[in-house]
Amino acid sequence: MRMNTSTNSNLAGFFNPKNIAVIGASEKNQWFANLLENARKTGFEGKFFPVNPKAAAVCGIPAVPSIGELPGTVDFGVIMVNSRLVFSTLQELAARNIKNVLLISSGFSESAGEGERLQAEVREFCIGNGISLVGPNCLGFINVAGRASVFGGGSVQIDPVPGDIGLVSQSGASLEVIATKMFKKGLGISLMVSSGNEAVVSFEDCLEYLVDHGSTRVIAAFIEGFRNTPALRRIAMKAAAKRIPIVAVKVGGSAKGSAAAMSHTGALAGNDRVAGAFMRQYGIARAGSIEELVETVGIFSRCSVPKGRGLAVCTLSGGLAGMYADICSSLKINLPDFSPGTVAALKAALPEFANPANPLDLTGQGFYFGMENVMRIILDDPNIDVVATLSFPPEKEGDLYAMHNEYIIKSAASTEKPVIPLTFREMTDFARKYYRDRGLYFIEHPADGFRAIAHLLDYVKFLERVGR
Amino acid sequence: MRMNTSTNSNLAGFFNPKNIAVIGASEKNQWFANLLENARKTGFEGKFFPVNPKAAAVCGIPAVPSIGELPGTVDFGVIMVNSRLVFSTLQELAARNIKNVLLISSGFSESAGEGERLQAEVREFCIGNGISLVGPNCLGFINVAGRASVFGGGSVQIDPVPGDIGLVSQSGASLEVIATKMFKKGLGISLMVSSGNEAVVSFEDCLEYLVDHGSTRVIAAFIEGFRNTPALRRIAMKAAAKRIPIVAVKVGGSAKGSAAAMSHTGALAGNDRVAGAFMRQYGIARAGSIEELVETVGIFSRCSVPKGRGLAVCTLSGGLAGMYADICSSLKINLPDFSPGTVAALKAALPEFANPANPLDLTGQGFYFGMENVMRIILDDPNIDVVATLSFPPEKEGDLYAMHNEYIIKSAASTEKPVIPLTFREMTDFARKYYRDRGLYFIEHPADGFRAIAHLLDYVKFLERVGR
Repeated sequence: MRMNTSTNSNLAGFFNPKNIAVIGASEKNQWFANLLENARKTGFEGKFFPVNPKAAAVCGIPAVPSIGELPGTVDFGVIMVNSRLVFSTLQELAARNIKNVLLISSGFSESAGEGERLQAEVREFCIGNGISLVGPNCLGFINVAGRASVFGGGSVQIDPVPGDIGLVSQSGASLEVIATKMFKKGLGISLMVSSGNEAVVSFEDCLEYLVDHGSTRVIAAFIEGFRNTPALRRIAMKAAAKRIPIVAVKVGGSAKGSAAAMSHTGALAGNDRVAGAFMRQYGIARAGSIEELVETVGIFSRCSVPKGRGLAVCTLSGGLAGMYADICSSLKINLPDFSPGTVAALKAALPEFANPANPLDLTGQGFYFGMENVMRIILDDPNIDVVATLSFPPEKEGDLYAMHNEYIIKSAASTEKPVIPLTFREMTDFARKYYRDRGLYFIEHPADGFRAIAHLLDYVKFLERVGR
Repeated sequence: MRMNTSTNSNLAGFFNPKNIAVIGASEKNQWFANLLENARKTGFEGKFFPVNPKAAAVCGIPAVPSIGELPGTVDFGVIMVNSRLVFSTLQELAARNIKNVLLISSGFSESAGEGERLQAEVREFCIGNGISLVGPNCLGFINVAGRASVFGGGSVQIDPVPGDIGLVSQSGASLEVIATKMFKKGLGISLMVSSGNEAVVSFEDCLEYLVDHGSTRVIAAFIEGFRNTPALRRIAMKAAAKRIPIVAVKVGGSAKGSAAAMSHTGALAGNDRVAGAFMRQYGIARAGSIEELVETVGIFSRCSVPKGRGLAVCTLSGGLAGMYADICSSLKINLPDFSPGTVAALKAALPEFANPANPLDLTGQGFYFGMENVMRIILDDPNIDVVATLSFPPEKEGDLYAMHNEYIIKSAASTEKPVIPLTFREMTDFARKYYRDRGLYFIEHPADGFRAIAHLLDYVKFLERVGR
């Protein structure tokens, strides 16, 4: 009997384990220690059982000599033994009715010949025996919102922040970089998963789970190759209907990139132009770098989708205003002229020598002429749907800079149009938290931030096309 | 008599003042306090004399009631009075033979009509009376290497680091952002100057001074508009002959950007396509953002110009390798195939399942197979001129990550080919200092870092064209 073991209900069990056996746990590598540390940081309350016949304990946790001696409460197995021993391990787990398996070991389809054969064998066994298996050659997952983690990586450098962004990556190292940058920016993650070689559970299966499971409002993906285009199309349309934007780095825009991806997880990067057109058609935003990916899911997580596509930019320097305009132009972001009423109102609201154009150079003094009033005028302009405006990142509670930002807090609260702090001066961790606590997306790297705005505005167009 | 008061010898005096009178110094705004604070941070040993008839002291420094009562040792005047009072102030300074003047006040050519007339009057008086005047509508300068500063801005957020990068900007706010980001990256500045409306001393004059004065090896510029193209051409060719790369943000790539620049300092942004072609012809690297500018002067400051244009990239993840390859391809950076000898040697030096291609995915284990050997093999490849390679940013003295970087330190010391740490995991201030102390340029934001590499490789082509 062959079974689909990658359905949403299978995966709900997989991503919410109770007690976890770790076959091959040892102190010779970092994997088991990493599993424990990540689980601790995530607030996981289940137990780990290292299975190792040669040790009394691993990392201070009593070892179980064999799979046969595991307690019946174990519902999840992690395999980190040599690839040649994986198949028999799987059989033993199946005999104990443990049907959720994370296979961390490498030495499968990413290396040709024997590895490919072993992976086919694993796949056959799992679908014949109802096993949901993620991997091989992957790191696992952190279910941040659900407080469960089976993750072997050691490079998620900031404690997990729960939130509404789902993250799936075929590359484990990239997943860790992406998650760290999200947490650093104060963005929260629902579930993050490294899908590896995808012998059984695929990238598309994980994506569908994220679209359906309810606590994810935005999805970030790092894709080395599409495996199942019909499934991806179906999932992308479902995501669009639910207004869940998908943002992806898709490797393979170059011959060398495509070759690197293929030799890695064995996924076919395919014809990149076709992939690009596919993504545009189904509203999947394509990011060129991890930084752009993080900014783009950030803006989708924090900002509602605007009604139209006009951006206003407001800063304190003519030089910066000009540079921002050039960046927007290169990204095809529309900076509409202000309406005549707005121009007249801004003339009255700003110093005589300030020019009431978009982008708006307030001038140094202009900032002290009443920014709440200036914002009101701009937000009332029917040509304007999003505003990016000068913000000094605060350095500590209640400082002068925090006071300067009151106008942004009040303006943002008064409108459905996204109001985005465009920071001047260096960012601080305090400021990241300050903006996060107030639900604001903020720009700290203008080129990446304006790219995120471009993706937000493209999504407006996509929704118009598919019917919003 | 009309005099050129912007020659290198005039400017050498201007940028190395002994004692400074500040006309209009008060506590009502931050300018005077900022002048003092910046001078302190720069290690300036001269004196400031606030000139203010209505105060006994300003910021704790005894005030002088009038210019006539200043001591004879004063050789520099800062004017921060209302624009209507500037002309008479200039006359009084000239009467005291003070011929170096920084004019901070605004209200000149950046506002039409009366402001333009006032600026023409200032200009005529200065060139008729041998006065070197920088401004109006500017912040001044910090001569970091020469330990002198007359700078009214308050947003250079990190203490000045002396070094070999000269920086000139028509926009004061942009100058502060650029300098802060450079210092944060550990890059050192020789002299930074805000040229403002350029009534007398122009952007081009400052640029020429930087090219000639000896302690500058790389130049960063933020340009709102070219004023004197023949001078710029001559200076660019002189810089090329001296192998001093010039990197510039040139505002005006869009109609809105051009308009913003014009309304600011009154410079004509001109036809941007002509400007772009001009910059390419004369080897001026054009950066699209401040971050790209900082990275690009960083790479020129830390790396010698390579002999050829082949880049090798080395990382620990197939996903990242693929993404880096895509970024390089989009920037037209050549990642040459390794020579057959290199491929054979890498096969022997790395785990069996690692694919010895460029970009090179070492695989997780590969990193422990002897990276010094791997680097030696790659650096010996005649197709390769620059290497960007995996680096874990250290977090503290002598930690595991610092040990991991020993291979980079040793490799870099053994070759003239630039070896560039391509960081994995988040950057730390300690790591920035670690790399700086070892003279290494490092990549922390891949899109910006690879853009910097692209500019370095374009400079190789430029030098080939003009004869190296």
